[in-house]
Amino acid sequence: MSETTRIPPRSGTAFELAKGRRLTVIDPEGVQVSDLLAFSRADLREVISNGRTFDYEETIRLGRGNRLWSNRSNPMLAIEEDSVGCHDFLLTPCSRATFEHFYPDKPVHRGCLGNLAEALSPWGIGEDDIPVAFNCFMNVPVAPDGSVRVDPPVSRPGDRIVLRAEMDLVIGLTACSAYDSNGGSFKPIDYRID
Amino acid sequence: MSETTRIPPRSGTAFELAKGRRLTVIDPEGVQVSDLLAFSRADLREVISNGRTFDYEETIRLGRGNRLWSNRSNPMLAIEEDSVGCHDFLLTPCSRATFEHFYPDKPVHRGCLGNLAEALSPWGIGEDDIPVAFNCFMNVPVAPDGSVRVDPPVSRPGDRIVLRAEMDLVIGLTACSAYDSNGGSFKPIDYRID
Repeated sequence: MSETTRIPPRSGTAFELAKGRRLTVIDPEGVQVSDLLAFSRADLREVISNGRTFDYEETIRLGRGNRLWSNRSNPMLAIEEDSVGCHDFLLTPCSRATFEHFYPDKPVHRGCLGNLAEALSPWGIGEDDIPVAFNCFMNVPVAPDGSVRVDPPVSRPGDRIVLRAEMDLVIGLTACSAYDSNGGSFKPIDYRID
Repeated sequence: MSETTRIPPRSGTAFELAKGRRLTVIDPEGVQVSDLLAFSRADLREVISNGRTFDYEETIRLGRGNRLWSNRSNPMLAIEEDSVGCHDFLLTPCSRATFEHFYPDKPVHRGCLGNLAEALSPWGIGEDDIPVAFNCFMNVPVAPDGSVRVDPPVSRPGDRIVLRAEMDLVIGLTACSAYDSNGGSFKPIDYRID
């Protein structure tokens, strides 16, 4: 088994993931969210797309057996294991603007968007290049009238999701910085590449 | 009242819309879909974002009173009138790839994606720059388990949606080319700028 790497609370990282390798994202303490981005290594303008994924998977609730698709209609990642079964692909990474909007009385943080942009800057990827992320463990119920709310994740300590790369990728990954997404407590995220 | 312009079946157009002007999108025959894109005229890398819109409007069902937001967390369009109340912001524009995926026995069409890219090419906007569009009149029910399907629109002849520009914009607009989105019949879309 490969080594596990820890992403400290309210931070992010980026790395390359070759086709066929498996990325395991682990919630070590439970009730934490990890924003996941994927870009094609061969052409960074090919990026993960919630709309294409909803189209081809015919659901907004992705889990084991589903694939995450690119804006060019190619599969990027296949979800092979998933001990939680509750993730979000509707909402954008938290950012300075979302902190100012949702938490006007709290200190502003650059959020997952700022953390992802910094981590991905060695590949020339900036904030404008960042689409909606696949938010591992994020709990966003949709009511029958379409309204959404952000509840604490249902993930328990050690819960995980395993994604196999369907092409050579650049991955961005965070330990989320927003209050609502993790029930108000900031925790680390662990990951492993096999 | 200004002149009404017709978008022929399975085609698209693009035009500039100054801040404060109103765009009326009309379904002249009923049961047709129009994909709508918006880019900031000042910087075309600022684009309409379904994720930011779901975040700030706290719903996936947009209608009168809602605003459509950009990837930079600025409001782009405000929905002032809406005689249908059923639109989609989950699914991507139809394309060659979606035709091959969903309609393998039917002739491939470049779809709304190809039509939008051609119409927007004078502004230097290409397929990779096109995000999830706001799909006027498109009827995409989400089941309690998250699964989505594409039903015929509920729009009747003459139904419309009116959107006010909150910044100077470049707009892309189509008469949709996909079979499912309009119940298998291809029809025009009308629009007007006031």
